[in-house]
Amino acid sequence: MLDLIRELVIRNVSKIVLVSLDGLGGLPDPTTGRSELETARLPHLDALATRGACGLIRHVAPGITPGSGPGHLGLFGYDPLAYRVGRGVLEALGIEFDLRPGDVAARGNFCTVDGQGLITDRRAGRISTEINMRLTDRLQREIRLPGVELFVEPVKEHRFVLVLRSAGLGGHLNETDPQVLGKAPLRVRALNPDSERTAEVANTFVDEARRLLADVAPANMVLLRGFDRLPDLPQFPEVFGLRAAAIAAYPMYRGLAKLVGMEVLKTGNTFGDEVVTLRQHWDAYDFFFLHYKDTDKAGEDGDFAAKVSALERLDAFVPEIEALRPDVLVISGDHASPAVLAAHGWQPVPVVLWSRHCGADPVSAFNERACASGTLGVMPAQHLMPVVMANALRLTKFGA
Amino acid sequence: MLDLIRELVIRNVSKIVLVSLDGLGGLPDPTTGRSELETARLPHLDALATRGACGLIRHVAPGITPGSGPGHLGLFGYDPLAYRVGRGVLEALGIEFDLRPGDVAARGNFCTVDGQGLITDRRAGRISTEINMRLTDRLQREIRLPGVELFVEPVKEHRFVLVLRSAGLGGHLNETDPQVLGKAPLRVRALNPDSERTAEVANTFVDEARRLLADVAPANMVLLRGFDRLPDLPQFPEVFGLRAAAIAAYPMYRGLAKLVGMEVLKTGNTFGDEVVTLRQHWDAYDFFFLHYKDTDKAGEDGDFAAKVSALERLDAFVPEIEALRPDVLVISGDHASPAVLAAHGWQPVPVVLWSRHCGADPVSAFNERACASGTLGVMPAQHLMPVVMANALRLTKFGA
Repeated sequence: MLDLIRELVIRNVSKIVLVSLDGLGGLPDPTTGRSELETARLPHLDALATRGACGLIRHVAPGITPGSGPGHLGLFGYDPLAYRVGRGVLEALGIEFDLRPGDVAARGNFCTVDGQGLITDRRAGRISTEINMRLTDRLQREIRLPGVELFVEPVKEHRFVLVLRSAGLGGHLNETDPQVLGKAPLRVRALNPDSERTAEVANTFVDEARRLLADVAPANMVLLRGFDRLPDLPQFPEVFGLRAAAIAAYPMYRGLAKLVGMEVLKTGNTFGDEVVTLRQHWDAYDFFFLHYKDTDKAGEDGDFAAKVSALERLDAFVPEIEALRPDVLVISGDHASPAVLAAHGWQPVPVVLWSRHCGADPVSAFNERACASGTLGVMPAQHLMPVVMANALRLTKFGA
Repeated sequence: MLDLIRELVIRNVSKIVLVSLDGLGGLPDPTTGRSELETARLPHLDALATRGACGLIRHVAPGITPGSGPGHLGLFGYDPLAYRVGRGVLEALGIEFDLRPGDVAARGNFCTVDGQGLITDRRAGRISTEINMRLTDRLQREIRLPGVELFVEPVKEHRFVLVLRSAGLGGHLNETDPQVLGKAPLRVRALNPDSERTAEVANTFVDEARRLLADVAPANMVLLRGFDRLPDLPQFPEVFGLRAAAIAAYPMYRGLAKLVGMEVLKTGNTFGDEVVTLRQHWDAYDFFFLHYKDTDKAGEDGDFAAKVSALERLDAFVPEIEALRPDVLVISGDHASPAVLAAHGWQPVPVVLWSRHCGADPVSAFNERACASGTLGVMPAQHLMPVVMANALRLTKFGA
């Protein structure tokens, strides 16, 4: 599909804005029967839905709850089942580590083992981030791996990221966490022949870490999982012929955008800052990806009222974006985060697409129930970008 | 999918009529907010939509604007991405050249080159069709290609069709048009080993043409593009078990129908003539494809009012078709041609399907907005024929 798009792309000067409301979709509050979107007062989003074409976006596959990685890859036009990004890579992107092609990344946990080397706590009593920083620093300074550059980066509490950099490292390895107490950590094993050298190197790292951490209980051992290489993704600007910029206050989303080759613009901590950044760079790019985090945070916290208010805050920014007069404005999300689930959900996510050519559509409210009757239908997320490109008059016809 | 259908086909005496309104779908006029279909008075199509099942047809893929070739292949049940038909072949079909399996066809342009052989006009000043006919006739008479039969057929102005006929010719060749002025035409190169002999033959043709045209500036050279073999398509009558007839006033659509093995019936120049032809041959076939061109012509001209009136003229013919009492009547199109775009569009196209078994459906108007809520949903074009076959009670069940 991306090959087909690449073949049909033509030049144009049209501007596209894609706003991803993280965890956008919701579920009705059982007491009112109305979802977060149906409860919120959203005059600008409803007006946009009235003028635009609406539908529901299904990421990954029916019934599948997407993580933020696959959810955003879908919005960017990639089939998340064809382009998988491992946990270690996402973790590295989340701390904005500068991953390079060929790097192998893994998610690490500090853990506690007893005198026999059997695990007694898989999270080392959730040590403080401060202790974590001291320990990762020691591992980084004292471990040498022949021919391989090593990075041990702290995340929060007991979590860290391990990155191995060298030519020819494979990324297919098992995890070392046996997932139960009372067992020893597993050895790293290669799952394909290309990854045998990586397994050897990773085991050397684990052995050295065990030695260096021996006297610092509870964090006296490490567990590794989610090994993966930085995937070789077709680059968004090249596939779609767009000068593409990402504006995101949170590092994970900047990392995802960088992964597909978008330029990441420096911005502040709020969505208001993101809109300022958008305005400042308006002339320099064709495509802007803006990320809004508050909806997901409230959904994951199970806070229905906070999600309603996060939606209303976002709604107030819509006129500022419209004032820039984008040729195509799309608002959707990377997955649902219904407050009643207090977690990501599998439900399809509302989408509204406005352009001068988006067509007649019966929907006049931006919520799950209304968007179900929209002319975009229920579409796999990766179908959205071709429709966006068409509305930007940036695709020529297929066949004569 | 076609293999599955072939396996399930059963005999029946039911009659199917598929009417393709070329460029059917549209977009709202910005001043009224109503599309061509929503503006037109369409009492018979609306009545049919009320009784029938409705939906939207998406040809090729989301956001992709189909040419008439892929658009009609989709309506005939073929996935247009799996069965590609090259420009040269479509051009040959458009002049009703009798292409045979194995033939390689290319679209040709007469062009102008200077003393150094560099292109100064890619269309040779759009020479008259009369001059074109004289020149193609000379090339046809004077060029001999060893072991290959050659056809040089005039189209309009500077355009012609080149057909090479011989066993074992591949059709994967680059175009010779460098797309810019001031460069020499490119040599024909084979894009796969099977096409090497074709490249050699085509270059001989080009060299001979250059020699013969040397003194007839502005048309003193030729450019070739869209090389392709006549594709080997599964034949419609065999796949669907239908005696199938095509009734089309325009040669391109007769050619497309012939490509899939339909019998092409002689008819006149108007849709009225087509309906007369339908009536005359009613007993001899199970399936009739009727083509209506006026909607596309008006859409491509950007003439909203003319498209509205083309739709109203077509509407008046619906009772005559219904009077023949087809078991399944389907009305749809091969792609959108919104007057506001003055070109083919990517928008899904309304479809109405009536049979005694088409099911309850809430739609009561034949237009984009209303059909979006139909029970057929938004369907890939190639899914239509299986639904048509089912409604004709011509498919048995799958599995026990």
